Amino acid sequence: MFLSQLIPVEKARQIIEENQQIMSEEIIKLEKAHKRVNCSEFISQHNSPPFDRSAMDGYALQAQDTFTSSPSNPAHLIIIDRIGAGDSSSVEIISGQAVKIATGAPIPAGADAVVMEEYTYEKGDQLEVLATLSPGENVSYVGEDISKGDKILGAGRLLRPQELALIASAGYGEVEVYKKPKVGVIVTGNELVDPTFHLKGAQVINSNQYALRALVESAMAGCELSHCRDDAQLMEKAISEAAEKYDVIITTGGTAISKGDVVVDTVDKLGEVLIHGVAVRPGKPVGFGIVNETPIFMLSGYPVAAMVLFDVFVRPYLLKMQNINYEHQPVKKVAQKKIPSNLGRTDYIRAFVDGNGVRPVMSKGSGVIRAMVDSNAYVVIEENQEGVAEGEECYVILFDSFKV
Amino acid sequence: MFLSQLIPVEKARQIIEENQQIMSEEIIKLEKAHKRVNCSEFISQHNSPPFDRSAMDGYALQAQDTFTSSPSNPAHLIIIDRIGAGDSSSVEIISGQAVKIATGAPIPAGADAVVMEEYTYEKGDQLEVLATLSPGENVSYVGEDISKGDKILGAGRLLRPQELALIASAGYGEVEVYKKPKVGVIVTGNELVDPTFHLKGAQVINSNQYALRALVESAMAGCELSHCRDDAQLMEKAISEAAEKYDVIITTGGTAISKGDVVVDTVDKLGEVLIHGVAVRPGKPVGFGIVNETPIFMLSGYPVAAMVLFDVFVRPYLLKMQNINYEHQPVKKVAQKKIPSNLGRTDYIRAFVDGNGVRPVMSKGSGVIRAMVDSNAYVVIEENQEGVAEGEECYVILFDSFKV
Repeated sequence: MFLSQLIPVEKARQIIEENQQIMSEEIIKLEKAHKRVNCSEFISQHNSPPFDRSAMDGYALQAQDTFTSSPSNPAHLIIIDRIGAGDSSSVEIISGQAVKIATGAPIPAGADAVVMEEYTYEKGDQLEVLATLSPGENVSYVGEDISKGDKILGAGRLLRPQELALIASAGYGEVEVYKKPKVGVIVTGNELVDPTFHLKGAQVINSNQYALRALVESAMAGCELSHCRDDAQLMEKAISEAAEKYDVIITTGGTAISKGDVVVDTVDKLGEVLIHGVAVRPGKPVGFGIVNETPIFMLSGYPVAAMVLFDVFVRPYLLKMQNINYEHQPVKKVAQKKIPSNLGRTDYIRAFVDGNGVRPVMSKGSGVIRAMVDSNAYVVIEENQEGVAEGEECYVILFDSFKV
Repeated sequence: MFLSQLIPVEKARQIIEENQQIMSEEIIKLEKAHKRVNCSEFISQHNSPPFDRSAMDGYALQAQDTFTSSPSNPAHLIIIDRIGAGDSSSVEIISGQAVKIATGAPIPAGADAVVMEEYTYEKGDQLEVLATLSPGENVSYVGEDISKGDKILGAGRLLRPQELALIASAGYGEVEVYKKPKVGVIVTGNELVDPTFHLKGAQVINSNQYALRALVESAMAGCELSHCRDDAQLMEKAISEAAEKYDVIITTGGTAISKGDVVVDTVDKLGEVLIHGVAVRPGKPVGFGIVNETPIFMLSGYPVAAMVLFDVFVRPYLLKMQNINYEHQPVKKVAQKKIPSNLGRTDYIRAFVDGNGVRPVMSKGSGVIRAMVDSNAYVVIEENQEGVAEGEECYVILFDSFKV
């Protein structure tokens, strides 16, 4: 049907972006929020530090008592109390007195500076201070990091460990985030059997189920897998049920034009096929459509093509659904070997980047998983470009850049 | 006690490495094995491709029938069957015949090449072939990717989606991997309360619990959290129980030298303290020890110091326990601003890398979480180096390099 006309990758990307959906919101506990994206900003409910506190282990004192201090002329003070971490003291310091204090403990009344332990000499309750201090030295003042009412974090941030700590310190134990998309993966093909099956005839091991589950999870989405035979009625049932149950559907296989390739016709019957056939290699017979408002990505059944198509089209979609800011980030590397490519299609060539260089990982067909295993990047050769010469710069997408 | 002498970061790293433990092995289902490390190599139980198959959508035929073919002088053949994906055909081709074939389908007997659809013209069962083919063209031969008995993957690989697919295609549904370490995190401090608590006096929000759970999980380990007050008896109970239950213990707080800092003394009593005090900033009072054969990392209670110490010492340890090959990978960037540092300690300065430049993110104390939130890297300034001048190159560890 549609496959006779291939559209450029950029055009396919544009159609998919026009149909980008965003997940709704949910409130979850902060301890579950790692790598989620917050939907709303946070206003601090507290000052941080919550009180004037010591920035060092040392002695709280009055700075003026040390204005002439030096190793040869130390100031002599009396230690009147000791404050451990998490403790406080109710004493008030006057000139000539000091309080031993732990990092983070509240500065006692009357004190205006903390001398680091290294610059003191303690004997019983006698303290010698060998350094001159300025008022405020080694004191963190209440609210100097964050004041109550400050906006401490805008919406739409990917929450790393430090953001979680900041949100907690601002007084929040829950966070409103975008839901994770639930993805239904339908692996199609009569020939597919599980890995430990005793292979007969044209049977092929269903390796896509493992790769796709891991790929979907690497895009921070949930994954449920099923298998469907190449049968129009079964396919119709599988896709229409998935469209009810999932936020996104991915199929593999059944998008070419042979008999038994029923996926695209089924989507056309149930909904709308927006893309069928893209000038991309591997994975030319890729499709995209909408069934009952649910986007459906129809990937090649070839393991390598399915993986490449996932990286090119599906991963950005799943991440953007969660408002995770993601674009391919091609970097320039130098081809250590000639990399051939035909005009008229965008090639995603499996490759190995080492330092500033990149070499293609040789493979024949799009089914050769081995080449993906030996690779850590794609060399991207645009459709108007006829390969890359040895020593020439080319654009590379590192697999590491897919990590969230 | 020990804290009076600070040891260099390199020395601390060496002591920790000498006490590196490796997890034992377990067999898990392949669908659970993403980002795990396999303990043993895989030998393929199958040929791949499992049979001679078509690498293209097209027509299987005898190459000799096309030796004089061209667009102006096409070969004329009869289509005697059609093979969809997952199907096979029992016909045998003779000269003058062709079988329509889908990518991946078995080549029918008698055929030795496949002509791509683009170079043909089909009318009913009549086929015109416009191109000359060589024997073997567009045929993937049985075992040409992998032969039965080939070693397809060595031990000790971090399993990505493509390795899972390769293992499946070699005939395995399970994989032997290193267990994930179970980490017990004990957050210590009388002053700590949960985020939504109404703060009084010297109380501080326990933000470390959120950051550490996320950090431990980001190192592919399991995490259980508890809180312990600054009390020697309670601490002894908490640490000795944790040493039974977990593969690694992490504590935060209680490692300085004020009263109430009971963590290090407790470890000294129950086991052995191997490190207390490292010439590192932030996080100087860090400790490391062994209790009942269980390694225990005693981190600062300061949120930023705890995060930095985790990244510097704990993350590499947890990853190596699982045989995940991990070293810090410092990269060179140009300081866009002067970055001061004192001699005699290794500084991990929170910083923001933008392209080839890096600027420090200003902060006063080690408690300032905000600075970690605004950062995407550490500038590492070695202990024998007195800061970095504007425009000078310096070493940077990108937070992105922590991602597994």
